[in-house]
Amino acid sequence: MNNTPIDSNFYAVIPAGGVGSRLWPLSRVDSPKFLLDFTGSGRSLLRETFDRVAHLVPTQRILVVTGDHHAEAVAHQLPKLAEGNLIAEPSPRESTAAIALAAAIMVNQNPDAIIGSFAADHVIRNEVAFAAAVAEAVRLAASGKVATIGIKPTSPSSAYGYIRVGDAISEVSPQVASFAAEAFVEKPALAIAQGYLDTGNHLWNAGMFVLKASLLLEILGETQPELASGVAAIAASWNTEDREDVLARVWPTLHKIAIDYSLAEPAAAKGLVAVVSAELDWTDVGDFASMSTLHPSDELTHVGPATVVGLESTGVVVSNGKKVIAVSGLTDVVIVETEDALLVTTKAQAQSVKAIVAELDRRGIRDVL
Amino acid sequence: MNNTPIDSNFYAVIPAGGVGSRLWPLSRVDSPKFLLDFTGSGRSLLRETFDRVAHLVPTQRILVVTGDHHAEAVAHQLPKLAEGNLIAEPSPRESTAAIALAAAIMVNQNPDAIIGSFAADHVIRNEVAFAAAVAEAVRLAASGKVATIGIKPTSPSSAYGYIRVGDAISEVSPQVASFAAEAFVEKPALAIAQGYLDTGNHLWNAGMFVLKASLLLEILGETQPELASGVAAIAASWNTEDREDVLARVWPTLHKIAIDYSLAEPAAAKGLVAVVSAELDWTDVGDFASMSTLHPSDELTHVGPATVVGLESTGVVVSNGKKVIAVSGLTDVVIVETEDALLVTTKAQAQSVKAIVAELDRRGIRDVL
Repeated sequence: MNNTPIDSNFYAVIPAGGVGSRLWPLSRVDSPKFLLDFTGSGRSLLRETFDRVAHLVPTQRILVVTGDHHAEAVAHQLPKLAEGNLIAEPSPRESTAAIALAAAIMVNQNPDAIIGSFAADHVIRNEVAFAAAVAEAVRLAASGKVATIGIKPTSPSSAYGYIRVGDAISEVSPQVASFAAEAFVEKPALAIAQGYLDTGNHLWNAGMFVLKASLLLEILGETQPELASGVAAIAASWNTEDREDVLARVWPTLHKIAIDYSLAEPAAAKGLVAVVSAELDWTDVGDFASMSTLHPSDELTHVGPATVVGLESTGVVVSNGKKVIAVSGLTDVVIVETEDALLVTTKAQAQSVKAIVAELDRRGIRDVL
Repeated sequence: MNNTPIDSNFYAVIPAGGVGSRLWPLSRVDSPKFLLDFTGSGRSLLRETFDRVAHLVPTQRILVVTGDHHAEAVAHQLPKLAEGNLIAEPSPRESTAAIALAAAIMVNQNPDAIIGSFAADHVIRNEVAFAAAVAEAVRLAASGKVATIGIKPTSPSSAYGYIRVGDAISEVSPQVASFAAEAFVEKPALAIAQGYLDTGNHLWNAGMFVLKASLLLEILGETQPELASGVAAIAASWNTEDREDVLARVWPTLHKIAIDYSLAEPAAAKGLVAVVSAELDWTDVGDFASMSTLHPSDELTHVGPATVVGLESTGVVVSNGKKVIAVSGLTDVVIVETEDALLVTTKAQAQSVKAIVAELDRRGIRDVL
């Protein structure tokens, strides 16, 4: 493992957005997934992400991009976040705008800036492998690559996108190695995902990208020229008294596009992408099925202080309430109780929670959303 | 249908006992099944039973037997119950003791008394057929029979005992007829219950018995002589100042036995029993599966004012709370929410609720029992 310090030009960007509506009723518009504690650690996913990154870079080089209305909660959860390193978006405009704005601001401070983007709402338990993977990704980025960190699959999942692995570049540790990345692949059918798992030539795309800020802006200048010039205009005003005016005028015009489409796929097509394969004990906590893998058990597991009695049942019960909860004769059940809502479903139906939220909205039951 | 008034010697006895632990967390030691409203009528099962019987006999001839600690709640729910017609048991001693005491008190007032026993916690929706069946049972009782009312099965249930039907006695109405009763049969296996349904020669035993009080005491004198003399001693003291003393001394010694064993089976063996077959739209509301038949639907039905959203789900949700309840991808689910408890199970597992209550007791979680 490489023990040299990570490049002094490296900055970590944490985009903290998205409600996580598949995790309703825990996640809400006003208390999104990244502000919640899903692991029972006592820290939110955002705080865990910040702390994990703070082991690798000084806090002065960690930026968080979040929505205006969550800025206060984010600042409260991250007392070590440096002054000026919280970028508040006037409205949600997807990941490209968020990361590109951070890159444009950084490149004005340091033309050699390398930025790494790490989602605020994923769980990574193998922090040693994470540190090694980031160091390798930064090394690749410094050499001009678009580096991404791919997760070695542990199951055939059709809930994730994949990265197709090409020629080996280097072996960093038993759990970390780098390769050329041939392509980014959309969420596959389960049978195809099983094939990926069997052959080992595909990794989960966890949305972590590391590259020179200047390269990011250069690629966006080709794929999304209006978006690139928009963030450049905002960044130019960032340390002036015009910031609020320019932000208010330009931000709402930026194209909403995920960074996978604006950056990753075009760069892969040009042969610019390298992938660091890592065993991170990772999950994106995308839904309650994913969340329940954090609490593995053949029995009925529960999260929170509630008294739970299970008879011939498996699954997960989440409650911070005081009710006694009894469950009988249900397999892979998901029960989530909050002060104003109760969800009962199954792991197999975990993705349908998004449809429940849509149905509540349709019926005008919005005080629980 | 017979429109003559029911025999003026007829008294209705309503034994109001039993917690109904298969209906936890709705039913509790302190608020047993018979005190609760399971039909959404706004009246408890006890009150519905009282009102149903009050259509047939004057309230002066309706007696309720219940536990000491429920006497106040019973009196509150039944403002029309006549003074002196509430018999409070110092402790639960099963149905024979309860009904025999009522019979012994009655026979002292009226040697020709005919008593009919009607459980306080069943639902009967066809009140016209019920009236006709009771009138026929009273007629049979006056002629010296032990009359019982048997329910024409509507499904192959292994949750009920059965009565085997013999020779016809008379046809009262399209829904009501009487027969000799050959035997009482314990709860059968499902395949056997299906046979009973197919051949039509067995009725559900709903535990309703009508007979002369003197005959009841005579039979008990043979089958349960100590119990018979015990209740006779209590009844002799009933209108004296010794009542409390005798009750306190004798009651705890009475044998605990269901009236099916002390009366029905021995009388059937002697050829003394007649059964009135009736289509009453009856259910004993024994568990949540039985309860859910009161709210038939192919969708997710709910009882109570809570907001319930179901996606691809069937079953029943019971809640008086204010939570929004969302259910997705569950078949025949049973969800019951009270202020201090939450039950999640399935109709198929409805009988297991009793085991949950036992488990809570075993773990010492008794404040929700």
